[in-house]
Amino acid sequence: MIRVGVNGYGTIGKRVADAVAAQPDMELVGVTKTKPNYEAEAAIRRGYDLYAAIAERAGEFETAGVGIAGTLPDLLESVDVVVDCAPSGIGAQNRSVYAAHDTPAIFQGGEGADVADASFNARTNFEASRGADTLRVVSCNTTGLARLLAPLEAAYGIEKARVTLVRRGGDPSETGRGPINDVVPDPTTVPSHHGPDVNTVLSGVDVDTAALKAPVTTMHTHSVNVTLREPPTTEAVRDLLADESRIFTIPEAAGIDGAGKLKEYAMDRGRPRGDLWENCVWEESINVSGRDLYLFENVHQEADVVPENVDAIRALTTDLSAAESVERTNEALGVGLESLLLSGGDARDPITADD
Amino acid sequence: MIRVGVNGYGTIGKRVADAVAAQPDMELVGVTKTKPNYEAEAAIRRGYDLYAAIAERAGEFETAGVGIAGTLPDLLESVDVVVDCAPSGIGAQNRSVYAAHDTPAIFQGGEGADVADASFNARTNFEASRGADTLRVVSCNTTGLARLLAPLEAAYGIEKARVTLVRRGGDPSETGRGPINDVVPDPTTVPSHHGPDVNTVLSGVDVDTAALKAPVTTMHTHSVNVTLREPPTTEAVRDLLADESRIFTIPEAAGIDGAGKLKEYAMDRGRPRGDLWENCVWEESINVSGRDLYLFENVHQEADVVPENVDAIRALTTDLSAAESVERTNEALGVGLESLLLSGGDARDPITADD
Repeated sequence: MIRVGVNGYGTIGKRVADAVAAQPDMELVGVTKTKPNYEAEAAIRRGYDLYAAIAERAGEFETAGVGIAGTLPDLLESVDVVVDCAPSGIGAQNRSVYAAHDTPAIFQGGEGADVADASFNARTNFEASRGADTLRVVSCNTTGLARLLAPLEAAYGIEKARVTLVRRGGDPSETGRGPINDVVPDPTTVPSHHGPDVNTVLSGVDVDTAALKAPVTTMHTHSVNVTLREPPTTEAVRDLLADESRIFTIPEAAGIDGAGKLKEYAMDRGRPRGDLWENCVWEESINVSGRDLYLFENVHQEADVVPENVDAIRALTTDLSAAESVERTNEALGVGLESLLLSGGDARDPITADD
Repeated sequence: MIRVGVNGYGTIGKRVADAVAAQPDMELVGVTKTKPNYEAEAAIRRGYDLYAAIAERAGEFETAGVGIAGTLPDLLESVDVVVDCAPSGIGAQNRSVYAAHDTPAIFQGGEGADVADASFNARTNFEASRGADTLRVVSCNTTGLARLLAPLEAAYGIEKARVTLVRRGGDPSETGRGPINDVVPDPTTVPSHHGPDVNTVLSGVDVDTAALKAPVTTMHTHSVNVTLREPPTTEAVRDLLADESRIFTIPEAAGIDGAGKLKEYAMDRGRPRGDLWENCVWEESINVSGRDLYLFENVHQEADVVPENVDAIRALTTDLSAAESVERTNEALGVGLESLLLSGGDARDPITADD
């Protein structure tokens, strides 16, 4: 069993903790929290040992009636690998702490690429991460782009990709974020840093990105154009993407018109927290015109990196192949959405509750 | 077993169906849908028999690959009671259909009070609903107000209640609703219809309401003032409300500052769809000044009427008491949130993952 600690139990940390706990070859040793709020309570309720992320604040937990198993150094001494899920920028500060305890570490995409030995995406560079002591799982947007561009590059060759990222302003629980009523270029410089970040896990693909943020909390939306070297039919691209286990092509018949209904679908399917671990590509948006491919996709900023973190743990600590790890992760979590609804040309016997 | 059909499988219908299926004394016979969209697919995946709500559109289901067990009349012939979860206004149109099949029916609060023999809230008038053939579960806002005002009336006497309802503009999946960037008086006339609607389930309480709608999809927020006849201490009101099984008093220590974190807490607690079946009252907002009580509460428009519908089914079809039904509903669903976090004055041994 791989003994795992999660440092930071917020939006990403709570999901990584649940995902680790669900793996057959991993043991979640504990999670940390800076203060005893509702998330600390929830960790206890889930049966997770809680550690104070900041030793000086350990007393606050007892005052609130929340028992702790120790502080961060205690956790680091008890694990094979720590997943850093601290807010952006804090991960870099934590690096020396992990090194002092000789604990292999995985960081999130909010840190710069230099925080770790290598950047990571399971679809594009699992094998290249072998032998590293530290990995950085690239951000939600970069993860989504890498998953989409890798199969297109392999199948048709990418001459140039141009993507506009309409990013969510904040997560649902972040009452202090904006914008409230604006669409803000962020960064205003174009191309944005997301293209080069894709190249940290998928080298040699020419991709320019422009990024905005919008007053939504649910998902990021990508407007994608890829100029291909050997253009396929629209149908071939639909099939190629539908075959990817971490891409969900949304059938037109579903009547899903935005992130709200996408999340509703995830909840209807029983997904924990309504999480969408897959890129969600609108089927009818996929269109090849000359050598230009166009499509819209959504990525769930709270969720798409979660299976990637699980795979990064195995890349750091095991000899499993990428395919073996991804399959194990997908099966343990239930990654891989597929709709039962038929598209126009398909045919089969109708599916009922008895099937 | 009480055989139940749910006519309409949208925001409320899907939740009522799940709640019915979870009851030890009920059998969910089937649900209806007007078209074979993602929600119809989800019903099939949950193992629910699906019926076409509109017989003329039954063919669309087969085209989409979704098998149906019949049409609405078939469902009505197979159940002891139907819960109408059609959009507002459609319920009234369905009334004659249910009557023609001699099927007792429960309607939702989007219909006028005259749609049914009596209006219903489990806390305030379960017993008064005995002998009715049809009931109307009052709306989410009215349900929330009735639950809050009933214990205050019983304990201290209400001279006058004045409530401003800041309502959510639409549900998360409703992309066509507004406002986007405004707070709209709705209705502009004051007092609004919500006060009289409270009196359909809690007579004799003087309550005036003013209603607005805001650009949020998560929850309604109530700003409450109640002038009491015999004013208690602030602490006594906190205890009174905390003792109500369908009211959750949010402890200050939780760090929950809005609907986003409230829903996050519900998801952290493993609630399906992040549903909050309880009124959520901010503990530190509760304040008695002279004879005036003030507080803020949130109600989850998608969820708070769900346990009420379950109780309404028993009021129509069994001899169970209100207390017995509410206890059974609460236990089967898990209604009744309580935080482990301590308030300032309390003390106990800290709770850990091992407890």
